[in-house]
Amino acid sequence: MKVVFELEDGRVVNETAAAGETVLSAARRAGVSIDAPCAGNGTCGKCRIRIENGEVSGERGKSISKKDFTEGYRLACASEIVSDVTIFVPGSALAWQNRIRVADFSSKRAQESFEAMKKALSGNKYKTDSIFTELTLRLERPSLDDAMADRERVINAAARELGALDEQISFTMQALRKLPQMLRDNDFHIGVLVRKNSGVLRYARNDGGDPRDSDCYQIFDIYEGVAVQVGVCIDLGTTTVSGALVDLKTKEFVATGNVGNTQIRYGADVISRLVESARDGGVSRLRDAVTKECIAPLISKMCSCAGILPSQISRAAIAGNTTMTHLFLGVYGNNIRLEPYVPAFFNLKYINGHEAGIGIHPEAEVLFAPSVGSYVGGDITAGVFATGMARKESFSLFIDLGTNGEIVFGNSEFLLSCACSAGSAFEGGEIDCGMRATDGAITSLVIDPDTFESQYTVIGEEGQLPAGICGSGLIDTISELFKTGMINAKGKFIHEGPCIYQDEWGFTYFTIVSAENSMTGNDIYISDADIDNFIRAKGAVFSAIFTLMKSLDMGFEVIGEIFLAGGIGSGINIGNAINIGMFPKLPEDRYNYIGNTSLSGAYAMLVSDKAKERIDEIARSMTYLELSSVPGYMDEFIAASFLPHTDASLFE
Amino acid sequence: MKVVFELEDGRVVNETAAAGETVLSAARRAGVSIDAPCAGNGTCGKCRIRIENGEVSGERGKSISKKDFTEGYRLACASEIVSDVTIFVPGSALAWQNRIRVADFSSKRAQESFEAMKKALSGNKYKTDSIFTELTLRLERPSLDDAMADRERVINAAARELGALDEQISFTMQALRKLPQMLRDNDFHIGVLVRKNSGVLRYARNDGGDPRDSDCYQIFDIYEGVAVQVGVCIDLGTTTVSGALVDLKTKEFVATGNVGNTQIRYGADVISRLVESARDGGVSRLRDAVTKECIAPLISKMCSCAGILPSQISRAAIAGNTTMTHLFLGVYGNNIRLEPYVPAFFNLKYINGHEAGIGIHPEAEVLFAPSVGSYVGGDITAGVFATGMARKESFSLFIDLGTNGEIVFGNSEFLLSCACSAGSAFEGGEIDCGMRATDGAITSLVIDPDTFESQYTVIGEEGQLPAGICGSGLIDTISELFKTGMINAKGKFIHEGPCIYQDEWGFTYFTIVSAENSMTGNDIYISDADIDNFIRAKGAVFSAIFTLMKSLDMGFEVIGEIFLAGGIGSGINIGNAINIGMFPKLPEDRYNYIGNTSLSGAYAMLVSDKAKERIDEIARSMTYLELSSVPGYMDEFIAASFLPHTDASLFE
Repeated sequence: MKVVFELEDGRVVNETAAAGETVLSAARRAGVSIDAPCAGNGTCGKCRIRIENGEVSGERGKSISKKDFTEGYRLACASEIVSDVTIFVPGSALAWQNRIRVADFSSKRAQESFEAMKKALSGNKYKTDSIFTELTLRLERPSLDDAMADRERVINAAARELGALDEQISFTMQALRKLPQMLRDNDFHIGVLVRKNSGVLRYARNDGGDPRDSDCYQIFDIYEGVAVQVGVCIDLGTTTVSGALVDLKTKEFVATGNVGNTQIRYGADVISRLVESARDGGVSRLRDAVTKECIAPLISKMCSCAGILPSQISRAAIAGNTTMTHLFLGVYGNNIRLEPYVPAFFNLKYINGHEAGIGIHPEAEVLFAPSVGSYVGGDITAGVFATGMARKESFSLFIDLGTNGEIVFGNSEFLLSCACSAGSAFEGGEIDCGMRATDGAITSLVIDPDTFESQYTVIGEEGQLPAGICGSGLIDTISELFKTGMINAKGKFIHEGPCIYQDEWGFTYFTIVSAENSMTGNDIYISDADIDNFIRAKGAVFSAIFTLMKSLDMGFEVIGEIFLAGGIGSGINIGNAINIGMFPKLPEDRYNYIGNTSLSGAYAMLVSDKAKERIDEIARSMTYLELSSVPGYMDEFIAASFLPHTDASLFE
Repeated sequence: MKVVFELEDGRVVNETAAAGETVLSAARRAGVSIDAPCAGNGTCGKCRIRIENGEVSGERGKSISKKDFTEGYRLACASEIVSDVTIFVPGSALAWQNRIRVADFSSKRAQESFEAMKKALSGNKYKTDSIFTELTLRLERPSLDDAMADRERVINAAARELGALDEQISFTMQALRKLPQMLRDNDFHIGVLVRKNSGVLRYARNDGGDPRDSDCYQIFDIYEGVAVQVGVCIDLGTTTVSGALVDLKTKEFVATGNVGNTQIRYGADVISRLVESARDGGVSRLRDAVTKECIAPLISKMCSCAGILPSQISRAAIAGNTTMTHLFLGVYGNNIRLEPYVPAFFNLKYINGHEAGIGIHPEAEVLFAPSVGSYVGGDITAGVFATGMARKESFSLFIDLGTNGEIVFGNSEFLLSCACSAGSAFEGGEIDCGMRATDGAITSLVIDPDTFESQYTVIGEEGQLPAGICGSGLIDTISELFKTGMINAKGKFIHEGPCIYQDEWGFTYFTIVSAENSMTGNDIYISDADIDNFIRAKGAVFSAIFTLMKSLDMGFEVIGEIFLAGGIGSGINIGNAINIGMFPKLPEDRYNYIGNTSLSGAYAMLVSDKAKERIDEIARSMTYLELSSVPGYMDEFIAASFLPHTDASLFE
């Protein structure tokens, strides 16, 4: 059957489908990225599409109102194709993953982000290296008496500049392929980027002798005029991929950007992705989704900002969780989720650019932050480095709240880590009006106890209308609802107010922003189902911290500093988070939100091999505590799934 | 307009063409490889096709008889499309390049070829290396108490076997991508191929310290059971590409093969190819022709013979002339043919498999024999190594007769080289009934002085009918025609005989095999135009040798040994070659045909890094004499363009 997808952004995609196939499945095959954070279980309501022509079968489901249903709205995951059909895909179903946000360094947000990164790294006295050297070469023009080949002519001149022997210098194919014409177009006057002794090929030496340093230097790329020296660092998140282009000479940002991880169409969490990856062709499907549809376009957009070509990127550093790193590399990772939870690799060190498939220089070194276990990955080892906690004598606690929650406690002597499945609630997933901490997100909120009206702040330029609520906004909303007595310790609405409604299924909603004041033209609300999801997430975090400390027989009071990081956003109100029982009750000044520590750690690896070595050491010294194997953990989780906790004395 | 190509091998290819486009041009675009050794100048007659339906415009030309013309035969290069047309492409127009000939080592020819190679290399005491090591690993199955990642588990076990540290061992992506499933399918019992310290990535070290040997070993590939250790060596010829798969453990051949270089559709000689490469997109067009259409299929067929996969090939060595090496690598080489004749590179050392684009292991080391100049390439440096002449005190002369003729004279003290443009006559090009020295080729011939009947030997199995004449057969034919007095010193027919005919243009033909006794069903003949082409080729060779020796103020008598190599074939009759004035008059036992020395040298590089180093040294020590800059060279060439020479005393 013919299926036509009409996307809100104007694209039209044709596909054929078998009768009975779901709209979501046909869309995936057609490359139309429809949101499905619940992995097609019909529960999240993110995959709302509208039938324009033709027919689909399937129940209405709780996320579609009667009115919307009569207008043709359906859940893509719950609708089976029964005839030729034309389907409108609204931006709301696409926006999550398809929108690349890029900023050059002139923007305020990019500067803030760089400041946060510098702050995160300030505790580390890591040495930045000069991995590359630039040369400007004016060569003799060849003649009948001097018919030396172009490559050897450049190497000869470079050797003189570098004080090296000709045979110590090699040449990348990318540089060689450009060389003959660039020399002649520029009167034999070119800029050269030389890589020093880093990830270069060493000449064979199999006779038992010492390895020769025949490739101490590599002519890495050539330029008309001045060489470009730019690297890229990437935080490879389950929900969001963030990146920054870095001038490797000044170590400053030249562009930053982020994009939703397009793998989200195969599910919001790592488990759904691993399940999909184990299906036929799944490994390359998931790899392509993140490399071709997500990172390559992000890099390409950042490069446009910076006025360079992706192929000029000469080094990359990537930090991601264990699953994301496997899927990025096209390595089968399904054993991560199957007992005994064994990844294919912990520490890859690096690969060549061509193997990464993200459009950068084919011989660029691509570094990866190492994993410690199936659920403590490179984002955490890079993050621990960024906090500087592994250099301190005093104890610190590191809490990274992205799609998963990871917690590390320790100091320069030891590091103990654990992971909790917080779901995607902190990044706005599993919440009807949830969204990432990006433009339009409500990031903080106060409810007037008399009128029940909300006052909120929104990320974005002056006058930005709200589009949804991000993690920090959700903490505030629930804390406020609890403080004003509108919800009870179980998160259920007990008090009626002017902004509270109930739908036909019995779910109760509190309206934060009415349709006419929102960017989307729909109400922004929170339901008791949303609150329930969020409480389970915060309960998972608190019980993980509690169990981790208890396993060491230590109380919260030993924690000198708490580093918060991840997608939950910088707007987090610590007082409110303690109030709802998400974080331990400790003086608020011990809490520090330090941004995207995974990206900070990737940045450090990018500019310093020393930092990469230190992160490898952190990974080796870190112990992993499997919470599910700790007796009593489930009881702790249940006790923490209340507002604030069954043992309220913990928060007094 | 619609063009349908019906190929004799049964394939049908559809293409569209503009009115006025030549059939040859449309065929090239459609990927139909029609022979055009004269580069579409209408002179060679190899591109004969037959019009089945529709119309083309254009002159008949000398290569098409009146009868054939009325039957629809045309030259593809001289016929312009003026309507929708259906074109039959006979095997004769395709065979040159499309036929891959492969032999496993059980065949007699493959064994002979290996014996020739061993003979060529016998003068070299090169040490063969063990670049790879095989391990068989039985690993502990992971458990909840031992959840080490797969990669680290393999490295740990390999380190114990190798007596190395874990951090000295790296892993290729190809091996890592197979690892999780292969381990579990084989109860954690696998074969591992380890590469030792050869072309592996070295870990970054930019702090001024010594480079660490963090990658002394590389887990190169993994296997169910025993590892495969196979390399490929390739002679990258202008006309013919020859290859051999080699067991890197035993150093024995496991398969050999050859295929016409499909670039021939852009012209028979390197100049036509360089001209084409300078056109828009030409570099990648010529690269694809030789890598995708020629070498990758050849390797794939040899691998089928040997029962392995191309991706299991773990090392490659390639020897080719300067132009072929540039075009293979997609490097712009047009400056080779433009004064001051400067190639883009002389010595590339090696690249990674993925950059070669021939389907082998992406991290295989691909080695190249170095060039000395624009017209003395890696085929010659590898060839000089194979002759062993660079290790001897006595003087030797090396003559490689392929599409170009290259000559090297010298000993262990010095090497002087020059090149002559012999055209493709020695490989059967520019000769109506010429062909390569392969099945069906007349390789030697005697003419009865009374009956003018020919007695000949044909390459192939018992009963093989002749299809054409190869280089050695042409030498015999011309020598016999000259000895029997049928042609004069200018190569013109002066004596009529029963096998001599004249065509309507006045060209005279001597028929060697009549149509009913030939494989093709056509007469096999030689015309005075063919003889003229051949005499110019042999004159170029002789005058080059003469000029080279004269420049050293040395006579032929100092030459202790003469090594003959190249596509002219092993059947060469030295007495006849001297008789026609092609080679110096020296005792015949000083002449040695030693086969494809370019392939022999590539084989040596493949199995020994020492041999590669020695070939690099040979390249550095070799001087190039540009013949055209030697006063009097043209006079020598003209004097040598007679049978045997204007100074007949040289051959008495």
